[in-house]
Amino acid sequence: MKPSLPKGTRDFHTNDVINRKYILNIIEKAYQLFGFEPIETPTFENLETLLGKYGEEGDTLLFKILNSGDFLAKVPEEILTQKQSISALEHLSKKGLRYDLTVPFARYVSQHQNILNFPFKRYQIQNVYRADRPQKGRYQEFTQCDADSIGSNSMLFEAEFLQIYQKVFTDLGLLDHIQIKINHRQLLEGMFQEINFPLDFKETVIIIDKLDKIGWDGVSEIFLKKEVRLDHIKQLQTKITQDYLTPGLVINLQEKYPDNLLIQAAAKDLKEIVEDLPSQFNCKVEVDLSLARGLDYYTGCIFEVVPKTISLGSISGGGRYAHLTDMFGLKNMSGVGISFGLDRIVDLMQELNLIQNQVKKSIKILLCHIDTMGFHKNIDVANLLRDNGIACVLYPGLKKMKKQMEYAAKCAFDYVIITGEEEVNMGEVIIRNMELGMQRRIKNSVVPDYFLDNE
Amino acid sequence: MKPSLPKGTRDFHTNDVINRKYILNIIEKAYQLFGFEPIETPTFENLETLLGKYGEEGDTLLFKILNSGDFLAKVPEEILTQKQSISALEHLSKKGLRYDLTVPFARYVSQHQNILNFPFKRYQIQNVYRADRPQKGRYQEFTQCDADSIGSNSMLFEAEFLQIYQKVFTDLGLLDHIQIKINHRQLLEGMFQEINFPLDFKETVIIIDKLDKIGWDGVSEIFLKKEVRLDHIKQLQTKITQDYLTPGLVINLQEKYPDNLLIQAAAKDLKEIVEDLPSQFNCKVEVDLSLARGLDYYTGCIFEVVPKTISLGSISGGGRYAHLTDMFGLKNMSGVGISFGLDRIVDLMQELNLIQNQVKKSIKILLCHIDTMGFHKNIDVANLLRDNGIACVLYPGLKKMKKQMEYAAKCAFDYVIITGEEEVNMGEVIIRNMELGMQRRIKNSVVPDYFLDNE
Repeated sequence: MKPSLPKGTRDFHTNDVINRKYILNIIEKAYQLFGFEPIETPTFENLETLLGKYGEEGDTLLFKILNSGDFLAKVPEEILTQKQSISALEHLSKKGLRYDLTVPFARYVSQHQNILNFPFKRYQIQNVYRADRPQKGRYQEFTQCDADSIGSNSMLFEAEFLQIYQKVFTDLGLLDHIQIKINHRQLLEGMFQEINFPLDFKETVIIIDKLDKIGWDGVSEIFLKKEVRLDHIKQLQTKITQDYLTPGLVINLQEKYPDNLLIQAAAKDLKEIVEDLPSQFNCKVEVDLSLARGLDYYTGCIFEVVPKTISLGSISGGGRYAHLTDMFGLKNMSGVGISFGLDRIVDLMQELNLIQNQVKKSIKILLCHIDTMGFHKNIDVANLLRDNGIACVLYPGLKKMKKQMEYAAKCAFDYVIITGEEEVNMGEVIIRNMELGMQRRIKNSVVPDYFLDNE
Repeated sequence: MKPSLPKGTRDFHTNDVINRKYILNIIEKAYQLFGFEPIETPTFENLETLLGKYGEEGDTLLFKILNSGDFLAKVPEEILTQKQSISALEHLSKKGLRYDLTVPFARYVSQHQNILNFPFKRYQIQNVYRADRPQKGRYQEFTQCDADSIGSNSMLFEAEFLQIYQKVFTDLGLLDHIQIKINHRQLLEGMFQEINFPLDFKETVIIIDKLDKIGWDGVSEIFLKKEVRLDHIKQLQTKITQDYLTPGLVINLQEKYPDNLLIQAAAKDLKEIVEDLPSQFNCKVEVDLSLARGLDYYTGCIFEVVPKTISLGSISGGGRYAHLTDMFGLKNMSGVGISFGLDRIVDLMQELNLIQNQVKKSIKILLCHIDTMGFHKNIDVANLLRDNGIACVLYPGLKKMKKQMEYAAKCAFDYVIITGEEEVNMGEVIIRNMELGMQRRIKNSVVPDYFLDNE
């Protein structure tokens, strides 16, 4: 059998894992600083928890787990003989893989509401799964890093997420390469009202969300197919792309639409986040009236972070939702959250050549042996190093020194410790710096100090 | 919809996640000290990679992912009309969830052999999935922590794993509560030869592996059903449970069975690991001739770690395999590996009340506001704390102080910082130690120092 992987999935080699951990650590530290606490949920949920939460397309992109045992036994015969896949589904599968971390979080909050205290701030870093056609920046398994504050209407939480963006992208060295955008669902809805836009709000939002992929030409085409008149589309475009200057934007909105309750409500929120709090938070954020976000459940502010020059889709998004836990029977739980897409951040940093300079690799040490006496002494030296918290690799047994050194070079060890009978008798080892190609002798007992000083 | 989880799966609350990370960190650090490098593989593999690798029972316990789209379309009609689940499987599912980390590792090594250097030492900490009936200590999703050294026959690697056991269980405070057992597959096979035991080797091993669950009575019953004579069973029992003293055990074996090549080979390996190397490694290990391990692929030394007093199954196991990558076309790749079962280690430490004392929780700080001025000042104080790497939570907006303090108590915050107009004017904040119920005033600017000193 030729070893291979399902398309859309990846192995992560050692360097990949180290790079990913570096980025994850920056995100996790930021979440912790703001008092978010970690939780984890299972890889698969009951299918009924997931179905219907991500729109029609989402339902088809859910990975479903085949029931165990004699799974065909319970499927009604006419469904099988007529090959009705859609009807067969409920009989064949009861579980699905996590599609995002937001719905499992809503399920978690509802299920454990009695032991949680609200407002509840949690973060969650786990993989999610989508049966999407694999393409650049899109994988079937990828890592999301979510944080949510739930159980409060306070705009403080929106402001904190902007501050977290500021911190994370500064720490990653990405701040100059990205745009942090904010908008408000009620502002969009208010604008649609102003021009009596004929389509349903949610439908319109999903179409506008495609702007960054297909532009106004593409979006107009879709609207035209849905029998929206061209002048209506033009009006919409003007409303949500006109050039408000960001300083004063909200006051402009408030003055221009004094009677539109939706716009007034949105403007109040935005004023608090973008104009009042940031003076203290010092965040770099742009109000983009054409930002829509594709997900159904947002009801207030929405966020998105996109690379400035590289076409890769968004690397983070989020927003406020007023009714996310309603479907699990828990009402009045307004919350707001964001999610970083680890995989796209890795891709972006790699395209910008940022990872190589930032991730500090730990020193790699190999112990090589000239003879049996050297091998046994090296076991002691390795023990001494490890007792001092210094990682090292013992070459397994005796091979020609040339072969051992070839291994050291191929594996990119930074230092090689060489020991034989002569060194043992002198109480010394040879330390070779592989990069410089230089070696020296030092006493056994100070080997840990040598590396501790060099770090 | 009532929120719930599939049986056999669990949510991990904040304390769970912190406890698990504490243990994972100890295991990961030990692996790193010995020069193992991290890799990760996808949650699902091609089903053909997994099928047939874990025995017949394993195949039924694999979680299979239903194909996307019109999955019934490609199933031959007669299979559907006759409801032949087994035959339908290959048409309905092409992917399965990871059942362990060993087979994915073998697939990884074979697939990427050209970019790897051997011996290759990798560790991998990921979840695995089994459609097992849930019961105590058995979950459908659980975390394995694997390390393997592949591409060398050296017994050094076996010895290193014993040393890792010593380090990990010492660091966890578990060393006195567990037994580390070792045996050798060739020793078992040699013993079976000595008494001409009538059953196939692999079959016998799988039955003996049940000893710790059903004892000799249960095992004898199974053998009798397979028409093994009682005297043969007694002979077997004597051979693999006789009381060799551990010091000198190997020499006893070598002298007692001079002509049995299997026993001689096994004794040579064991001597190196248990008698030669440990003098330098200082490990606590017991040779248990009745240790069998259930997995097919072991060919040399085998390990198992079990709790001494609590019945929970093994918390770690492993062994040497000579042919694991053969099935993926890569020959002559002998390796050895171990796996820690994180979930059982957590369960064990919880039953022994060990976790509570060991895991150091970070200090939790809440900022409460007497009035708007205090709220705005507290945003500055929070910024100052976070800039100094100290995590804190801002109470979102203004509520009665009583309500804010109730929240602080319920969430078990360690300190509350209280600020209002008076404090702002004096350049101070009130810091309340929640455990002691005492509070004091300090200058704004030294708030970070207060907590840095208290840590």
